[in-house]
Amino acid sequence: MRSKKFFISGFTSISILLILALSRKTMAQANDTESYADIAKEITRTALAEGQAYRLLAELTSYGPRLSGSPQAAAAVEWSRQTMTKLGFDNVRLQEVMVPHWVRGPIEEAAIINSSTMGTTPLTVCALGGSIATPEMGVVAEVVEVKSFEELKALGKKAEGKIIFFNRPMDASKINAFEAYGGAVNQRGSGAIEAAKVGGVAALVRSMTTRLDDVPHTGSMGHQDGVPKIPAAAISTMDANLLSRIITQEKTVRVRLKLACQTLPDAPSANILGEITGADRPEEIIVVGGHLDSWDKGTGAHDDAAGCVQSLEVLRLLKALNLKPKRTIRAVMFINEENGLRGGIEYARRASESNAKHIAAIEADRGGFAPRGFSVEADSTRFARLANWAYLFKEIGADNIFRGGSGADISVLVRQGVPGIGLVPESHRYFDFHHSDNDVIAGVNERELNLGAAAMAILCYVIAQEGL
Amino acid sequence: MRSKKFFISGFTSISILLILALSRKTMAQANDTESYADIAKEITRTALAEGQAYRLLAELTSYGPRLSGSPQAAAAVEWSRQTMTKLGFDNVRLQEVMVPHWVRGPIEEAAIINSSTMGTTPLTVCALGGSIATPEMGVVAEVVEVKSFEELKALGKKAEGKIIFFNRPMDASKINAFEAYGGAVNQRGSGAIEAAKVGGVAALVRSMTTRLDDVPHTGSMGHQDGVPKIPAAAISTMDANLLSRIITQEKTVRVRLKLACQTLPDAPSANILGEITGADRPEEIIVVGGHLDSWDKGTGAHDDAAGCVQSLEVLRLLKALNLKPKRTIRAVMFINEENGLRGGIEYARRASESNAKHIAAIEADRGGFAPRGFSVEADSTRFARLANWAYLFKEIGADNIFRGGSGADISVLVRQGVPGIGLVPESHRYFDFHHSDNDVIAGVNERELNLGAAAMAILCYVIAQEGL
Repeated sequence: MRSKKFFISGFTSISILLILALSRKTMAQANDTESYADIAKEITRTALAEGQAYRLLAELTSYGPRLSGSPQAAAAVEWSRQTMTKLGFDNVRLQEVMVPHWVRGPIEEAAIINSSTMGTTPLTVCALGGSIATPEMGVVAEVVEVKSFEELKALGKKAEGKIIFFNRPMDASKINAFEAYGGAVNQRGSGAIEAAKVGGVAALVRSMTTRLDDVPHTGSMGHQDGVPKIPAAAISTMDANLLSRIITQEKTVRVRLKLACQTLPDAPSANILGEITGADRPEEIIVVGGHLDSWDKGTGAHDDAAGCVQSLEVLRLLKALNLKPKRTIRAVMFINEENGLRGGIEYARRASESNAKHIAAIEADRGGFAPRGFSVEADSTRFARLANWAYLFKEIGADNIFRGGSGADISVLVRQGVPGIGLVPESHRYFDFHHSDNDVIAGVNERELNLGAAAMAILCYVIAQEGL
Repeated sequence: MRSKKFFISGFTSISILLILALSRKTMAQANDTESYADIAKEITRTALAEGQAYRLLAELTSYGPRLSGSPQAAAAVEWSRQTMTKLGFDNVRLQEVMVPHWVRGPIEEAAIINSSTMGTTPLTVCALGGSIATPEMGVVAEVVEVKSFEELKALGKKAEGKIIFFNRPMDASKINAFEAYGGAVNQRGSGAIEAAKVGGVAALVRSMTTRLDDVPHTGSMGHQDGVPKIPAAAISTMDANLLSRIITQEKTVRVRLKLACQTLPDAPSANILGEITGADRPEEIIVVGGHLDSWDKGTGAHDDAAGCVQSLEVLRLLKALNLKPKRTIRAVMFINEENGLRGGIEYARRASESNAKHIAAIEADRGGFAPRGFSVEADSTRFARLANWAYLFKEIGADNIFRGGSGADISVLVRQGVPGIGLVPESHRYFDFHHSDNDVIAGVNERELNLGAAAMAILCYVIAQEGL
């Protein structure tokens, strides 16, 4: 009897749990189909008709580029704090953190100095972020062109004393422009290290864009302990083609490269946080953010002022529509994504230290283009849950929910077990602007920016209500 | 016996037909999954890595705007003929047709002439296409602002002798920008007619864009028999807002409008045709085209040089990949879409007259943006067939195949029973450029343009092989 009773009560318990689980699911589904779809429409309508993201973008980019440690970055931190306060966010505060402080300096130039057909020919270059300076009179050396590190190593002694010209283009045949970027960017990140290993005196790297343009595209590069530091610069794609052609024609081509950049002591800066406090479970946090810092070319409009203002707009939209999320939605402007990730690291460190309960982290850092979906780092259960909400994003064309990287700033949180989600916009135009003087507000379309904000607002709200 | 024999043989015949039908279907499916997917990948890869659409776009737009009847349009016709010939198309030929010949003339200006706070204030305007001129000294009259024809009619006598200012904005809350356009464009098309009916002396129409910019966006307008012709101009959205604000503040606002446009006698022009002749069924034709003419603002880069060069690129890609379509694929550069549709009408007239067998007509006329899918006018069977091929477009994000309008130039063919298909790109940016000085090649992204061409090439090839 005992065992039977146990069996029955056990069965009953399981039944009750099942019924509860099913009814919860049914309620959630009913909720989904009836009200989330309506809320998604209303968020979208409001974002498109009365969106503030573009106005905020104009304000933020008006400070100029926001390289970590610069006065413009400091002004942007203060702007963020004031803007969150004006928008009525809760708990607006700074999370102070020291950031690297690299400066470009007043001079960066290069020229072919011995072309028999073209004489002295200036080349459009800029220092890569983190590079050391050249001597004041510049580095003058013969240039050797390579397409890969393997090709460089095979040069052996021939590379000694040379400027190494990394000229492997991004592979335009890739449908996803980020994949094309991923296939070329090691030249920028590690080119100076690999060049130095074989005795090269400087690195010139083809700009990371599929576009033929006449501006250099900067970005971070690294040095490595035990390998001599040599200066490294990006060269515009047009001048990379020119230089390559002259090398082919004239064999021995000498270039002078002058860079005046330097790394100063770390500088104080901060992440900026502001929230809508959850009505039911305030301790459960959904982070939505972008990175406030940018490179010092253009004004970082797409990278990543767009993601910042979209994150601010997420909270503004929910407040404007008087939606009361059950869980806390926190906008975070991360500092120093481009050359250190100190903001992302510090945010995750404090989260871990305080045992903060993050149920999801969402980042927008792929440009302010028309949203196509979300890239998810989470376990199967949570991924399936997110994928089930795809229908809410169908009307705006952002229903492609797939597994993939989320965002650099939230990557440390993700390693701590927090589900990470990246907003994925159309990628084709991103590298037209990326890390260059092209990245200004004129390249951002207001409707596309607004729709990206709408997509994130819908996602944040559903997660805030349903959990993840 | 006879009936039994008949029954058996009938059954056998049906069986054989069924088996044939099934095996054909199975083969087609096998073909689909094995080779069409591979061909789609190869077309896409080639379009992205070695596409010529952007180079062709640069050539075509270098002639300037291509308004019907203009020397630039004539040059573009000749460029099209030569380009098709150079690209090795079959049966390159012109289809001559007379087109309307409206000219903007040397003067178009407007100003508020009596603002108590701002004095004389120039307004950025341009004549709407088809408008008559004003008297040489201009029309000078008080302005009344309305948001709809209903509001205009309600004015009654108050509208007499006035310049009617149609200031209903495109509804930015629409996700599809064309829907927003559709909700506002009657002001441009019929504003002058409705204004004249109530005694108005001229029409000023808010430019058809959701963007705040300082250029007017032109476009076609109509006159109506029995209603006096009055001049009509577009005003930039910024100046529409300015004018509206001054009217609100000062009540009685007078504007002077000068237009020097005129309609000349019809001029000779032509559609341009070129083909890949079908290997098996050359008499079955798939048309792929855009319209060669443009408005006389900017260089009509998106509208519709993009669609023209994409159509040329469709045939070039198939030839470059040595694909041999079973049916004929014909590129058509239609003339005079913007202000007469004479090219589309003439093409359909000749098609009907010669009993040409068109199995599909595809038009690209929504800008050279990232493709999202196809809009189809066809019966259920053909629509289902097209929808089944959606998987071929998934990787490039263009798998949204839905029922909707196809294209103006092919609309007459569609009325004759030909299935019509429109390439549907992302719509958000289109009206930033549309019919204005903004519509130049700088607004076109090469990767997006190439992908649109790839999408059409894949579709054309599958239809050429499988029929529709």
